[in-house]
Amino acid sequence: MKNKFGIGMDSCVIPLRHGGLSLVQTTDFFYPLVEDPYMMGRIACANVLSDLYAMGITECDNMLMLLSVSQKMSEQEREIIMPLMIRGFRDAAEEGGTSVTGGQTVINPWIIIGGVATVVCQPNEFIMPHNAIPGDVLVLTKPLGTQVAVNAHQWLEIPERWNKIKLVVSKEDVELAYQEAMLNMAMLNRTAAALMHTFNAHAATDITGFGILGHAQNLAKEQRSEVSFVIHNLPIIAKMAAVSKACGTVFGLLQGTSAETSGGLLICLPREQAARFCAEVKSPKYGEGHQAWIIGIVEKGNRTARIIDKPRIIEVAPRGATASAQENNSNASPESIS
Amino acid sequence: MKNKFGIGMDSCVIPLRHGGLSLVQTTDFFYPLVEDPYMMGRIACANVLSDLYAMGITECDNMLMLLSVSQKMSEQEREIIMPLMIRGFRDAAEEGGTSVTGGQTVINPWIIIGGVATVVCQPNEFIMPHNAIPGDVLVLTKPLGTQVAVNAHQWLEIPERWNKIKLVVSKEDVELAYQEAMLNMAMLNRTAAALMHTFNAHAATDITGFGILGHAQNLAKEQRSEVSFVIHNLPIIAKMAAVSKACGTVFGLLQGTSAETSGGLLICLPREQAARFCAEVKSPKYGEGHQAWIIGIVEKGNRTARIIDKPRIIEVAPRGATASAQENNSNASPESIS
Repeated sequence: MKNKFGIGMDSCVIPLRHGGLSLVQTTDFFYPLVEDPYMMGRIACANVLSDLYAMGITECDNMLMLLSVSQKMSEQEREIIMPLMIRGFRDAAEEGGTSVTGGQTVINPWIIIGGVATVVCQPNEFIMPHNAIPGDVLVLTKPLGTQVAVNAHQWLEIPERWNKIKLVVSKEDVELAYQEAMLNMAMLNRTAAALMHTFNAHAATDITGFGILGHAQNLAKEQRSEVSFVIHNLPIIAKMAAVSKACGTVFGLLQGTSAETSGGLLICLPREQAARFCAEVKSPKYGEGHQAWIIGIVEKGNRTARIIDKPRIIEVAPRGATASAQENNSNASPESIS
Repeated sequence: MKNKFGIGMDSCVIPLRHGGLSLVQTTDFFYPLVEDPYMMGRIACANVLSDLYAMGITECDNMLMLLSVSQKMSEQEREIIMPLMIRGFRDAAEEGGTSVTGGQTVINPWIIIGGVATVVCQPNEFIMPHNAIPGDVLVLTKPLGTQVAVNAHQWLEIPERWNKIKLVVSKEDVELAYQEAMLNMAMLNRTAAALMHTFNAHAATDITGFGILGHAQNLAKEQRSEVSFVIHNLPIIAKMAAVSKACGTVFGLLQGTSAETSGGLLICLPREQAARFCAEVKSPKYGEGHQAWIIGIVEKGNRTARIIDKPRIIEVAPRGATASAQENNSNASPESIS
């Protein structure tokens, strides 16, 4: 339900009255979707910061936290859950090199968590998302399928739902997929943002509520050149493609319309840089868990995006599982899709 | 339910990496309290901006809007109400010389409206709220009693509630008080912020959920000098003091604990400047409806605030009524209260 007023960018960019500087800021808030309040706080923070990272911004000058406490929670639930959520949010902010200095809390029927991220930048600190050109390659920095994994995990407790998917997935698969989704949603896109500069990114966005195709379409619309995006590969948390298929039209994961939360960056990179980007992001010097896949190409077109008829599904093995399944698939090269 | 993380100020002030500039920002969101969606939008915007104005900041570089649409509204209700709220918010932002360039909308059981106001300032653009000294005078720029007026107005439709106050107030009084409250809540504190510089204000805050006493106490706590605030006069929308009294301990308006929404600024001014501030703010050059009253003094003390035993109630006549009742009371001088 993201609603950006006026401009089709992840963050707004406001020229300031002071010496060539720009104010870049973004806000996002939503409802908890994982059971672990600490992880939920981290996810909410990663999700807010992601809009800055999508513009290649690696610094954040300030964060505000937006919270609502549910009126349905007992005093005891509040005292345990809310501090954990706040702690998770603050820890992720600290990991992003920033801190939370303000905010607002209200009482509401539902829990809400979100925030505001703000930075004042020099022109070379951000990359406007409209310079893709034909021949560029599309890179994605987190696997898809977070919503499917979160829902499948809830269905473990709902027999009539579970029965619909139990033929294609085991309970252990679902637990692993859920953990993998949670780790991915909580991971900052900050390393990817920094590497956008190193490898000369032409445009980027982050994948959230509209799914990979929706955000690809939004990004295509913003391009200065007459280009279109074609997606050939879908990196998906292992087994979640099968779960989505078994659910008919509920998710649309293979059609690219399944919502993601705090998803990866979709980045348009010069072809010769894309494979280097994907290799570099996995370097241990950036910490564990970073991945990236080449998923498509930029061609001449009318500023639209599409997924090819039978996209290749890259089954992304959860960190908890053996990594062998992943090895075969994780190095899709530009050659293999063009 | 305002919850400021870490610091006792209305806005957070973050030193930036760039040439002596500071980022000042604030957020606030809440639930509608008046029936008119357009006015509710204006009030929400005025309320957010007020945190900047309380620091003597008159400019705002950017606003974000935070909205939730109630899931209980019909499609038709949504299509009429939400655009009006957004229009009101945008119009007030424009009046404040700024604009709304981003935001987030969610679905929720309740309607929520609020926003984020951000500005990048040079040091001379803001006034830190901690320099009150003994001998200063307290000035308030909007009358109190907004919550009482809003509630009394709701009670016109609830006979058992109305019966409790009908001896002290007429229906017309309540209608006028409600209109007056709405106009005051929707009015920007921007003129007052500008005059804080002209008249050398030493500290200020805005009056919202904690009532005049709560915010006076919070401001007193932040002072560098050992001072206390003593409030002698309470300017209150006409008849609302009587309504509050008739309701026992429900509001605490005369005790200074009745919540206000988008209330006035409480400003510590040098004694010789305060009367001039109050006269200047009424000048037609700033538009209609601006008022200010000297309501107390700053004395040596232990950083607390109190209201004297029998404060003088200044009955502030609504704009819709004849202004005669107000004339007698609106020029309390520092002499009369010290």
